[in-house]
Amino acid sequence: MHVMILGAAGMLGQKLARAVDAGAIPGVSHLTLVDRVQPQPVPGLPCVCEAVDLETPDVVEALVERDPDLVFHLAAVVSGQAEAEFETGYAVNLDLTRRLLEAIRHRARVPRLVFSSSLAVYGPPFPDIVPEDFVLRPASSYGVQKAMCELLVSDYTRKGFVHGTSVRLPTVSIRPGAPNAAASGFLSGILREPLAGKDAELPVDENTRVWIASPDVSVQGLAHAGAVEWTRISAYPVLNLRGISVTVSEMLDALEAEAGPAARARVQRVDRPEVARIVQSWPQAFETKAAEELGFPVNASIADIVHEYVSQFGKTI
Amino acid sequence: MHVMILGAAGMLGQKLARAVDAGAIPGVSHLTLVDRVQPQPVPGLPCVCEAVDLETPDVVEALVERDPDLVFHLAAVVSGQAEAEFETGYAVNLDLTRRLLEAIRHRARVPRLVFSSSLAVYGPPFPDIVPEDFVLRPASSYGVQKAMCELLVSDYTRKGFVHGTSVRLPTVSIRPGAPNAAASGFLSGILREPLAGKDAELPVDENTRVWIASPDVSVQGLAHAGAVEWTRISAYPVLNLRGISVTVSEMLDALEAEAGPAARARVQRVDRPEVARIVQSWPQAFETKAAEELGFPVNASIADIVHEYVSQFGKTI
Repeated sequence: MHVMILGAAGMLGQKLARAVDAGAIPGVSHLTLVDRVQPQPVPGLPCVCEAVDLETPDVVEALVERDPDLVFHLAAVVSGQAEAEFETGYAVNLDLTRRLLEAIRHRARVPRLVFSSSLAVYGPPFPDIVPEDFVLRPASSYGVQKAMCELLVSDYTRKGFVHGTSVRLPTVSIRPGAPNAAASGFLSGILREPLAGKDAELPVDENTRVWIASPDVSVQGLAHAGAVEWTRISAYPVLNLRGISVTVSEMLDALEAEAGPAARARVQRVDRPEVARIVQSWPQAFETKAAEELGFPVNASIADIVHEYVSQFGKTI
Repeated sequence: MHVMILGAAGMLGQKLARAVDAGAIPGVSHLTLVDRVQPQPVPGLPCVCEAVDLETPDVVEALVERDPDLVFHLAAVVSGQAEAEFETGYAVNLDLTRRLLEAIRHRARVPRLVFSSSLAVYGPPFPDIVPEDFVLRPASSYGVQKAMCELLVSDYTRKGFVHGTSVRLPTVSIRPGAPNAAASGFLSGILREPLAGKDAELPVDENTRVWIASPDVSVQGLAHAGAVEWTRISAYPVLNLRGISVTVSEMLDALEAEAGPAARARVQRVDRPEVARIVQSWPQAFETKAAEELGFPVNASIADIVHEYVSQFGKTI
């Protein structure tokens, strides 16, 4: 089985390639990893790694001609960029996905497709727990583009052109690496930075509740969406993946349990009303019955998320 | 004020042009009527009527350069054609709307736009009364295309490129003219044909419940969406227009009250399982609080709908 990952150089794409290489999906014979920058090869399976601009005419079409059995489509511009650069957002997040689907439609083979969507397809006001059939009401161009792609993936699947599944990931925490400018960045930073002996800023109240999953669980979820029997998952064209609903205060408790009160003391409350406004407009918890029924993974607790990070990146205490 | 109607030769488009001409929207100085076939001019206002293929490159762009203050976008291929001709459906129902929005985005002026959407953005299973924030889950390519356009209209509006409102019309009954092949056709035929002294076929049980509005109320609703103060309607980027929920049996009671038992006896139950399946998959009633609050019109009763038709087209009894 030939697995292709579009967006394979990103944090999740790289981890997904390694997970597939390590056997997360049965029967994989070779991989094609594609991104704007050169993706890292995996140590085990035969692997073609390519740096290409997916927006260049015929590039997506040529990739689909290599007849992948399973495509993970993770390539996208992020929410902030899609909002600032209107045309780029639609070109990458909508048109590229549509060209991918059109290329697949014109092939004889019907591959599986896992499309990485986002909770940004939803918009406020939210109930405490967002049900699985909650209305699509995106409050950003990014959310509109992801919602439109979900609709396309569902329609191409209904017509039998592809076997597609759109998955909406929780906020990923703890992201490794340097702090970034995303509004959600502090949800990794308040744990990652103190674990490395550095200070971190907290732009929201400690009672703010968020919906998160660890990088490993997020990647296992993507892999599972491509591995579970099609006859089972085909009833769910769009899935909210499983996360845990925690308060910032609970996150800091877990930090303190792992690394002591000195680590917690490195987190300083700062006033960033714009970040607070964005984060508080996000839903705090989701119903994920379909994903549970289909055996998708979930973190046991916020302590579990902290342990995953420390076991891979260590701590400086 | 310059009003432009795209799709002005269709039944609703023609009626809308005449309603605007008769003063349904205050302050209109001239009209541009556009369709694939030559639209009929209106008797009063200055009016440019053009038969053009809106899919031809630069046609939509050139129309937008005439700087309309208010655009009604009714041009579409219907549900059956969009399902049978996959590429045509996306080209007309999605790409044309997007090109219209893009052309408007590049102009200095920010016009009002009323986009004619459809209840096909919803899919089963339905509650007895579908709430206004019900999930978008279209079961047809037509519904997917309309849902994608609603998302685009909302995003372009949020960004300030257009002042757009998407309106979802109930099934229109009683449509004048010849019987057509649409699954909903009998919802006009079972009243129109007996009123003209002809037989009609009923492909569903009499207890089937449907959501309908008369042609006049549908057109008044479209006009109202373009006339109501922008500051009021801008809070509702997508509106379910008002309809009445009636059973087929209640429709036939109204026919009998208008034209006697002989007229009702002309309606013969036939077995059309495919039509029955489609019609019974439609929702039976909708919550329309936003449209009520904004003063949208509604038929008083099914008798009111029958009277509207008879007053315009007469009856043969």
